[in-house]
Amino acid sequence: MFAGLSAFPLTPLVDDQLDERAFSALVKRLADAGVDSVTALGSTGSYAYLSRSERARVAQRAVQAAGDVPVFVGVGALRTSHVLHHADDAQAAGAQGLLLAPVSYQTLTRDEVYGLFETVVQRSDVPVIVYDNPATTRFTFDDELYAAIARLDGVASIKIPGVPLDETAARQRVAELRGLLPRHVTIGVSGDPYAAAGLNAGCDAWYSVVGGTLPAAALGLARAALEGDAPEALRRSEELQPVWDCFAEHGSLRVVAAIAEHLGLVAQPSLPLPILGLDRAQRARLEAAISRLKLTE
Amino acid sequence: MFAGLSAFPLTPLVDDQLDERAFSALVKRLADAGVDSVTALGSTGSYAYLSRSERARVAQRAVQAAGDVPVFVGVGALRTSHVLHHADDAQAAGAQGLLLAPVSYQTLTRDEVYGLFETVVQRSDVPVIVYDNPATTRFTFDDELYAAIARLDGVASIKIPGVPLDETAARQRVAELRGLLPRHVTIGVSGDPYAAAGLNAGCDAWYSVVGGTLPAAALGLARAALEGDAPEALRRSEELQPVWDCFAEHGSLRVVAAIAEHLGLVAQPSLPLPILGLDRAQRARLEAAISRLKLTE
Repeated sequence: MFAGLSAFPLTPLVDDQLDERAFSALVKRLADAGVDSVTALGSTGSYAYLSRSERARVAQRAVQAAGDVPVFVGVGALRTSHVLHHADDAQAAGAQGLLLAPVSYQTLTRDEVYGLFETVVQRSDVPVIVYDNPATTRFTFDDELYAAIARLDGVASIKIPGVPLDETAARQRVAELRGLLPRHVTIGVSGDPYAAAGLNAGCDAWYSVVGGTLPAAALGLARAALEGDAPEALRRSEELQPVWDCFAEHGSLRVVAAIAEHLGLVAQPSLPLPILGLDRAQRARLEAAISRLKLTE
Repeated sequence: MFAGLSAFPLTPLVDDQLDERAFSALVKRLADAGVDSVTALGSTGSYAYLSRSERARVAQRAVQAAGDVPVFVGVGALRTSHVLHHADDAQAAGAQGLLLAPVSYQTLTRDEVYGLFETVVQRSDVPVIVYDNPATTRFTFDDELYAAIARLDGVASIKIPGVPLDETAARQRVAELRGLLPRHVTIGVSGDPYAAAGLNAGCDAWYSVVGGTLPAAALGLARAALEGDAPEALRRSEELQPVWDCFAEHGSLRVVAAIAEHLGLVAQPSLPLPILGLDRAQRARLEAAISRLKLTE
């Protein structure tokens, strides 16, 4: 279940309120496109900005809208007790997995991060995905900590922040991780520009930002790689290079929100203030780049 | 009012619940020691980890316990609407100033940070302290942005993250800031190891972590500097060097919590999980260092 393309939908807001209808439609669109799972309330789902009740509601809506497609739900929070609340709510909603990042205000120590995962897996009835996102959590896992946490009963997958773009180096890195992790723990690449390299190098899953908004493009890339057509996966990633360039410049959240707004999937603006999203000139450049992609979304 | 020693008390928890009695006693102790202001719910007050209702309760308790000493309250949050809720609650409690850091999950742009401050000062009846803490917010102000925000009606002070330790460089830096800011906007140094250098160089205030737990030591340093006895301020800062060393190693929050626990001011453990605080060996080294300080707390 923790393999293939996991698509991360936006959580759109209108006037600082959840746009539940638009969110449900986003999730249904992903399920209809054939993604392997939906991860609600990832970084692209603005989990860190939402209240407990909003997060519970999003988890419920995601499970309802996804039909037979498994839904994973992000449960990260600064305080362990809040993580446990979110985990309870996600499981009550029907989530089949929990995504947990060691979010920090005060930078966390290795022992603190280990303790957090230990507490959460002990309390959860569904598997946990370890979410390594140093850019937003300011915590950098090392391989020893990956291995220790992966041995905890209840850990199903590790969402790694990319792999080297060089093919040989990527294969070495994934092989190295395989050697550290129990066999049942899958490796999922994130950082969309690394997806083709990661899947080609043997990652089991792609935890995908762009897959939440352009699922056909992401599925094309993922299917090619997972069926062994590495050159085709790389070609499809190169096609998306203008999007990756925008990610690097503005952050992926602002960019996929602008794409979803441009496609009419969500109202504009859709992000929680103080995040402003792209300005008019930035949007114009992004839309020009997207129009050249010949997307079949 | 935004000058002198502003002491930042801990917000102690017991079994994941606010220890309101211990918190009130901490604040009263600071007021009795003669601090110039108390800032509740700073980084050392764990604001980022607490719920809205907990933060409202802390603000109320702080104002009650501080007597005639002005209380400022930290209102930072990831979402602008949440910041406004905290600002409303703090003002209803009787706060005389609001401390606002541009907390981020997704790194913020300059325009987003400016917009956040603009919105908050427009909605607030009490002055705002701009809280620049790149280590926890992952946002770095530049001088142009300082100047633009300081010109907003309602900004009273800027809490800067230290100054150069070199005397001449520190004076140059503070003079440079003075040239940028309206005259009524005070400059407060933070990062306790920089306090003596900052006050000696002409900062108006010290927004102090250690002042929240060792107020006599902090007042001794602050009074010496503000009365013009620069060598005495530096001597007192050097005396506290073992504490500064612990701050650098473990983060100031974990260290002042361990000191407060050691002094019996709060129960152990007092920090919100997943933060574990210092382990036994680290505590022993800290306590040995403190016992050599001959503190009169």
